[in-house]
Amino acid sequence: VARRHRESPYPMIAVEEAQGKVLEHCLSLGDVVKPLQFALGQVLAEDVYASDPLPPFPASVKDGYAVIASDGIGKRLVISEASICGSKPELQKVQPGWCMRINTGAPLPSGADAVVMVEHTKVLECSEDGKTEHAIEILKTPHAGAEIRPIGSDIKEGDIVLRKGSCIGPSEVGILATVGKTDVKVYRSPTVAVLSTGNELQIYTEKLIPGRIRDSNQPMLMSLLSKQGFNVKGGGIAEDNLDSLVARLKSALSDADILVTTGGVSMGEKDLLRYALTSHFDATIHFARVNMKPGKPTTFATCCFEGKNKIIFGLPGNPVSAMVTCHLYVIPACRKIMNFPYSKILPTKIRVKFGGPQPVFLDPRPEYHRAYLDWSGGSELPVAYSTGNQLSSRLLSMHSANVLVILPGASKSINKAEPGSIFDALIIDTL
Amino acid sequence: VARRHRESPYPMIAVEEAQGKVLEHCLSLGDVVKPLQFALGQVLAEDVYASDPLPPFPASVKDGYAVIASDGIGKRLVISEASICGSKPELQKVQPGWCMRINTGAPLPSGADAVVMVEHTKVLECSEDGKTEHAIEILKTPHAGAEIRPIGSDIKEGDIVLRKGSCIGPSEVGILATVGKTDVKVYRSPTVAVLSTGNELQIYTEKLIPGRIRDSNQPMLMSLLSKQGFNVKGGGIAEDNLDSLVARLKSALSDADILVTTGGVSMGEKDLLRYALTSHFDATIHFARVNMKPGKPTTFATCCFEGKNKIIFGLPGNPVSAMVTCHLYVIPACRKIMNFPYSKILPTKIRVKFGGPQPVFLDPRPEYHRAYLDWSGGSELPVAYSTGNQLSSRLLSMHSANVLVILPGASKSINKAEPGSIFDALIIDTL
Ligand SMILES: [Mg+2]
Ligand SMILES: [Mg+2]
Repeated sequence: VARRHRESPYPMIAVEEAQGKVLEHCLSLGDVVKPLQFALGQVLAEDVYASDPLPPFPASVKDGYAVIASDGIGKRLVISEASICGSKPELQKVQPGWCMRINTGAPLPSGADAVVMVEHTKVLECSEDGKTEHAIEILKTPHAGAEIRPIGSDIKEGDIVLRKGSCIGPSEVGILATVGKTDVKVYRSPTVAVLSTGNELQIYTEKLIPGRIRDSNQPMLMSLLSKQGFNVKGGGIAEDNLDSLVARLKSALSDADILVTTGGVSMGEKDLLRYALTSHFDATIHFARVNMKPGKPTTFATCCFEGKNKIIFGLPGNPVSAMVTCHLYVIPACRKIMNFPYSKILPTKIRVKFGGPQPVFLDPRPEYHRAYLDWSGGSELPVAYSTGNQLSSRLLSMHSANVLVILPGASKSINKAEPGSIFDALIIDTL
Repeated sequence: VARRHRESPYPMIAVEEAQGKVLEHCLSLGDVVKPLQFALGQVLAEDVYASDPLPPFPASVKDGYAVIASDGIGKRLVISEASICGSKPELQKVQPGWCMRINTGAPLPSGADAVVMVEHTKVLECSEDGKTEHAIEILKTPHAGAEIRPIGSDIKEGDIVLRKGSCIGPSEVGILATVGKTDVKVYRSPTVAVLSTGNELQIYTEKLIPGRIRDSNQPMLMSLLSKQGFNVKGGGIAEDNLDSLVARLKSALSDADILVTTGGVSMGEKDLLRYALTSHFDATIHFARVNMKPGKPTTFATCCFEGKNKIIFGLPGNPVSAMVTCHLYVIPACRKIMNFPYSKILPTKIRVKFGGPQPVFLDPRPEYHRAYLDWSGGSELPVAYSTGNQLSSRLLSMHSANVLVILPGASKSINKAEPGSIFDALIIDTL
């Protein structure tokens, strides 16, 4: 349209300010009870207490023999093996002069008050086939309570084992299983719809049409977001016209809590997404220009659609820009909605030594430079090696990148990043 | 059985030697072709080439107007908007004196040889409703080729875009979609069965029976391994007797490439798992004692079952030991089988400053101390804070741990780890 802006009417804001605006608008979607096996990767929405102590019985710390300590060293008769190791502990009682085999973790049989580890015993009498011990000798004086974990020594009955707000990883699944927590209250995860825009795009699974390129953003962002454990839906490809875009936006917004679009936000296109959002969805645009490279035209909006609050990210169409801004804004938004602990919402920042054979010239904007970390050189700090040419259309520069080195904007005093200099870097993949 | 060993007959080996033995026996399971959306997290088993150049046409780098550079600055008539942005580029040709609107990424229309960004233009004439531009002025001299990405400037036709052996993360999904790679040859992932052993164990979903504890190892390890993207199966709980164990082992081995058991490997129990494996499965025990804390009785065996090679890990039954040894041996084994690059097989080792208010006394064995990293103090190296009491039965010590700090075994010269000292640490979770 001729009325389009010749210059962006939006103020350029800093990345930190943009992130602040995003997080401010990302509110919890409430909680839901899920079977434990589906709670991995989510955040606990309740304090969890132990309904019984752990161990729930005095448990052996060693493999050996349950004994009566006051019997001292010397010979013991061995109770028949049929009843060892907790299968029916209530049926057997250790009498003076007797002992019972016991394995690590098994309940102490009644009568016994100590465990003697197998290394401190020797066999005196056994069956002809050598399979059954009849009598052993205790070589070291046992003490009452020795090699026994008392009831509740790991977890007392009624203890809080995990607090509301804990992230549920594999260890936490183990902790919750330990206390018999089969159904777990967690914060709801957002559903994220991913939509690409651009007349030049086609779905990657079909034969390439002249004048088109395959859309890589949608499969890439869907992989990234589903790898994080969010619910992800494909929103298709919208053409660069109002009718197509509005139809796609409507369909995606009715399905999702968060809508991520790519493309349609650069200078000539921006009016289209912004116009569609403001005119048809009464959306508020919170920012549409960020002082970063790549990712300058990143747009963030909110609206109410079908009675629900929706979060909308208009990411740039260049795949690298889409990827970088997804890490900086979209993933933190999802985590905020899921009530991740404050320190785990934004990408973790670490200190790195900038590697590579030659200096990199700084852009006027702070640059999120794709790199991979290497500790093999023996230095204390990891070395971040650039993935090469950082053109924002060049998706190959994301290949094997696990950090984004934050290169500061060029100033009068510094205009290049020298190899060996130390910078902050954001972790974007497993190290 | 009376014949059980009073001392372990297995030599104690170092962790590095144990890892070496494991990796040596983990061989590829071959490859398989998968639809791209199911290839995430796996390793590419073929070189992938670009079947067409990217961009496949001269593409605009900016939003603006496609022009003929030799027309110079000044007025241009604007070709009607119906045909912009690549929808039918072949139908329109830019003639001298004319221009055509073009968006970032769109194909250059025929006739044009440059793009002028919108910021370097102004509107001269437009329709009464302001919606259609009829004429504009070019304010800055265009140069042929300006603001255009030539055909193949990102990827040339026939280029290798990803090499065999690349890990497929979200960026690589994007790269593969870009070149239209809908079906991808990847290395097969192992199927891992997880089996718990112990008379004292019961499944966590049922009401606690007196003398029993809930089995947390199976849900915990299954979460950990499935989070890594491996195929995981539950193997149930075996009792501490040969019949039960052999039956469970058979069933698990026929389902899986890798079998992970927990429990049954400590001094008195060890003979049972080892005996079952050697007598009923003709397994070779490669090691059964490792110089580490926790995890000393970790057992590694291989056998051929139903004509196939099987990898067997007998992990200790204490949940923390099971978790630590799963990170050190089982995950690397799976990654080796999947042909992960060498540097990504073992957990990544970083340098950390040991935090906490007081020194920790060193064990004779090297200790894998659970800790979480913190960068908030502003020091160059992250500070690793202990998760507290490191008793190997205390699963709470795994809560929120993302590294294992490697504390060296006590020696005459050093018997404690002082706060502020620098150690290596293994990354076991997202940072
Ligand atoms: Mg576009
Ligand atoms: Mg046991």
